[in-house]
Amino acid sequence: MTPVFIKNKDRSYRSIRSFIKKYLPFLEDFINYRIDTNKSLLDELTMKNHVVICGYGRIGSYIGRSLMMADIPYVAIDYNLFIVEKAKKKGANIIYGDPTDIDILDYAQVDEASIIILAVPERSAQESIVFNARKLNRDIFVISRVHRQSDQVRMKDIGANLVVQPEFEASLSIIKKIYLWHKLDKEDIVNKIRRLKIEHGIS
Amino acid sequence: MTPVFIKNKDRSYRSIRSFIKKYLPFLEDFINYRIDTNKSLLDELTMKNHVVICGYGRIGSYIGRSLMMADIPYVAIDYNLFIVEKAKKKGANIIYGDPTDIDILDYAQVDEASIIILAVPERSAQESIVFNARKLNRDIFVISRVHRQSDQVRMKDIGANLVVQPEFEASLSIIKKIYLWHKLDKEDIVNKIRRLKIEHGIS
Repeated sequence: MTPVFIKNKDRSYRSIRSFIKKYLPFLEDFINYRIDTNKSLLDELTMKNHVVICGYGRIGSYIGRSLMMADIPYVAIDYNLFIVEKAKKKGANIIYGDPTDIDILDYAQVDEASIIILAVPERSAQESIVFNARKLNRDIFVISRVHRQSDQVRMKDIGANLVVQPEFEASLSIIKKIYLWHKLDKEDIVNKIRRLKIEHGIS
Repeated sequence: MTPVFIKNKDRSYRSIRSFIKKYLPFLEDFINYRIDTNKSLLDELTMKNHVVICGYGRIGSYIGRSLMMADIPYVAIDYNLFIVEKAKKKGANIIYGDPTDIDILDYAQVDEASIIILAVPERSAQESIVFNARKLNRDIFVISRVHRQSDQVRMKDIGANLVVQPEFEASLSIIKKIYLWHKLDKEDIVNKIRRLKIEHGIS
């Protein structure tokens, strides 16, 4: 069997690839991206004190853009090839892969990074990332974006250093404006915002 | 027909109510709340320069809490009876009704209010509220919470004075922290944040 396979290796390769293309489009994307177009991707990255952004949706991409603006080194990871390709065209430093995978985190040099941002939507994925990132770098500062207050407690429990809930941040932004319009003095505003954060459980 | 109806008005009333209870539970809740338990609700409210909060979900309730804390007068409106009852128990100043309804806005004294906050999820509902609120008070300051960037443009087009997108606010909160850690000076941070807001289309 083996000699036959070797003799026809090109044909066999083509039929395997066409099978994958037809039935496993995800794997085909991966092969195209990681093997066909970018053979040495795993040896390229050398960074230090950088920010690792897991998930490049709205929050991830806003943060990536702001880091580019300030020349702060970062690398983003996303498992959606469409998002990765689009972001690359805009100049983002992004790799295609699953951020819950410790090898991908290792490749993003989490051991040398200072901050990791969890901007993937699922809490279970965030939990895996914290677990794997801490294996590679005990002291990395973990920022987690959560949707619910219960997720916030959970993420703090498993070691996130900062937890951000978008709706709460939006409220604070509106509240600060209303306080200013009502001419509350600055110290009073700072104190009230602190009290709200404590009530919300993030301070 | 009419005399028969009048003669049996109690029985008719009971059957109508039992029909409503069975087939239109929403209307039943409304009748219970507005007619049975609180006959004079519409005459009670007298406010000036207050904040009207439409929708008392996460954002609405965070804002309500912060206004209570600063003794800034406000009235919230929500069409979910469960939310209204729960909020009332916590001391919120909230009424049950549909904030897209001009009569409810009128009852909340939008004509005397200084700010109206649109924290209902649907864009179409937000559009109706802006339209009706402006009929009652041309100069009211309208703050809209949106989900997508396209909604942001639309809400600005139809006259919202301030548009807040939670994911963008959460990103700004994270970005400010990273900038501070990287020891960017204050002026530089303010300028970069301003540039990000302009890019995002909210400044």
